[in-house]
Amino acid sequence: MPNNSNFPYDLRIDAQRQKTDFDSLAAIGVDGKGGVHRPALGEAHLAARAWFREQVRAAGLELRVDSAGNHSAFLECSDHFSPVLLLGSHLDSVPHGGRFDGALGVLSALEVLRTIKEAGIHLPVNLEAIDFTDEEGTLYGFLGSAALTGRLSHRDLQSPRGGRHNLLAGLKRAGLSEAGLLNAGRDPSSLAGYLELHIEQGPQLERAGVRIGIVTGIVGISSYRLAFIGRADHAGSTPMLDRLDASLGASAFTLAVRRIVLEEFPDCVANVGQMQIEPGVFNIVPQKATLGLEFRSADQGTFDRLETILLASAHTEAQRYRLKLEVEFLAKHLPTPMSPLAQQAIHQAAESLGLSTLPLPSGAGHDAQYLALWCPAGMIFVPSVNGASHSAREFTRWEDCVNGANMLLQAALHLALGRK
Amino acid sequence: MPNNSNFPYDLRIDAQRQKTDFDSLAAIGVDGKGGVHRPALGEAHLAARAWFREQVRAAGLELRVDSAGNHSAFLECSDHFSPVLLLGSHLDSVPHGGRFDGALGVLSALEVLRTIKEAGIHLPVNLEAIDFTDEEGTLYGFLGSAALTGRLSHRDLQSPRGGRHNLLAGLKRAGLSEAGLLNAGRDPSSLAGYLELHIEQGPQLERAGVRIGIVTGIVGISSYRLAFIGRADHAGSTPMLDRLDASLGASAFTLAVRRIVLEEFPDCVANVGQMQIEPGVFNIVPQKATLGLEFRSADQGTFDRLETILLASAHTEAQRYRLKLEVEFLAKHLPTPMSPLAQQAIHQAAESLGLSTLPLPSGAGHDAQYLALWCPAGMIFVPSVNGASHSAREFTRWEDCVNGANMLLQAALHLALGRK
Repeated sequence: MPNNSNFPYDLRIDAQRQKTDFDSLAAIGVDGKGGVHRPALGEAHLAARAWFREQVRAAGLELRVDSAGNHSAFLECSDHFSPVLLLGSHLDSVPHGGRFDGALGVLSALEVLRTIKEAGIHLPVNLEAIDFTDEEGTLYGFLGSAALTGRLSHRDLQSPRGGRHNLLAGLKRAGLSEAGLLNAGRDPSSLAGYLELHIEQGPQLERAGVRIGIVTGIVGISSYRLAFIGRADHAGSTPMLDRLDASLGASAFTLAVRRIVLEEFPDCVANVGQMQIEPGVFNIVPQKATLGLEFRSADQGTFDRLETILLASAHTEAQRYRLKLEVEFLAKHLPTPMSPLAQQAIHQAAESLGLSTLPLPSGAGHDAQYLALWCPAGMIFVPSVNGASHSAREFTRWEDCVNGANMLLQAALHLALGRK
Repeated sequence: MPNNSNFPYDLRIDAQRQKTDFDSLAAIGVDGKGGVHRPALGEAHLAARAWFREQVRAAGLELRVDSAGNHSAFLECSDHFSPVLLLGSHLDSVPHGGRFDGALGVLSALEVLRTIKEAGIHLPVNLEAIDFTDEEGTLYGFLGSAALTGRLSHRDLQSPRGGRHNLLAGLKRAGLSEAGLLNAGRDPSSLAGYLELHIEQGPQLERAGVRIGIVTGIVGISSYRLAFIGRADHAGSTPMLDRLDASLGASAFTLAVRRIVLEEFPDCVANVGQMQIEPGVFNIVPQKATLGLEFRSADQGTFDRLETILLASAHTEAQRYRLKLEVEFLAKHLPTPMSPLAQQAIHQAAESLGLSTLPLPSGAGHDAQYLALWCPAGMIFVPSVNGASHSAREFTRWEDCVNGANMLLQAALHLALGRK
């Protein structure tokens, strides 16, 4: 071991190696507009995972793939039976998403393990850099972390938000199974903690001129599928007042969602991100309009009230246009505070690196909300230029990416060594 | 020839044979809900055409298929160079449509030719029972009649309302080509007239207690594709007021279309039958919302005003939500009066059959609007129960179907013999 008295807190990741990784990964599933298209368990996502496996082997780390498809690099820096400090994120993207979301966290976790391996540090924990399956929810959402923490039931897999057909097709493509997902739960005592580096995906750090966000908690997220049901009629010969036009209820509700959130829930957000009309033909009055609704709040009481009022509004708009309403609950992730212990370790890391910090809640969901049920979990945010994310406009300055990876390294060391 | 003095006006079609045809045809593309699914040039539609060819051969009629795929039975009941009186309709359906729309007109035209052939009548015209390609517009709309009347240009085929990809796939499936469509035009002087039997697809005949509708004209129909364009953002971390949500413009416009027609254009109808949201993901703010708009009016001046006001409203709603608007004009069919000569022949037929009549405009578009540009064209309507159409609920009492076929027979004779 070097005999520098500040060791290992003067360790830094290899920024050039991190950049090479970033560029390689950003080329997988590249969509021609500067973003990436890597929906979970699609071809491009599986290619990114193949890339990850190759890097793990090249770094001389141990590759582990669990029955939920979660990919890990493992570094034994303690005795074999010590708990594991997990560092990670995800390699899947939303359709036509950005290059930083998830990818930055995975490759930085990998780089942290390489750095610690090379330094030959002994820690009271072992380290694992993990790429979780389907964080983004094109299939289910936080699928890998839910599976790892044993939070997945047979029932959950029957109506995933991406559709059951797509889930089964994805599992098949990846050589996975429902049984594997349901049996991927680990022993809670095997986890010493979880740290994730991620881009903010919002404008707050940039607006405040701060380099590092210390996440205080993750908002609750609920999703529903709402179907407004009318009657198909000839769009030429059926008088306007005789129609039961499903598109009217769906349109009125879409506008109502925005009005309700703006007027009554200023700290919340909601999105109608999907709308399908059936039969979807120019000359037929819409028989069915199906919406995908998602809403978020950091506060449990507010979260519950928002749900009640949005669903009541859907019923009101359906009645207004003489439509039936079918409400399908899809998923709910409760508001989750981050561990004070992990927040403290992140704060110490920022002090040791001389970086300014801002405590802030995450408006986006992350796998950390599942890990937080089992172990001290924390998240490090770096600034998103113009707050853009989930699009090709997503961008984080490279200096901030390097800061983020060093933050992850230092926070991991502080959290691990703080356990001694 | 029989020496009955009222011959051929006492001729009647064979109702049992017509029923057998109807049941055979209704079984092709049956969708399990009592309707049929025979989108133009899809497998089921091509199967219906194979059935038609078989019936033509079995009846000893001459089969003709033109380069637009229009299928005909031909009966020479005059000298070879006499003009043709066309009788027909279409065998394609809207997606999950009814059993009567189009099919009744084609099989009745075929039955009329069989009846006249068996009676051995000589007429001043030859007869042709035609099944037009893609009347319903799942690909283009009135494709076969537009091609036959030389109204199709290369440009028209570039952005058909069903999408160019689908058009090309359909042509390929049917062994047709774009060049064939553009070269299917006949000589206008070859046509003596056009008569079509069709279900009303609206409630007026039933409400008036009348058996036969004499169509006075066909409404004008215009269709547009409107894209409201915003910006994709993360639906959790982007504040509501920072969003450029394309679904809001589309929803507001959908509601505005109905309000405008109800308040300012009580004699018109409009439909937003398609709505697609991109990227269509729960946790991404909609970047693009594409609507399919169709509107109709029987009066040219009103038709023009309606177009102006609807498009202005689309711009207004786009601006309200800070969205861009892309307007793509798809097709326009002008309001088309039916020929007084054809209406008179239909009226005479109803008198000879002792059936009550109601003159009425057609709110639905029909191939007759193309044929009317070239020859005396007329349409016979029979009642639709509850006015239902373009759905499995479509129903016309069998007695009315038989009346309709006899009306087509008698009107054809009156129109043909009135030429003498």
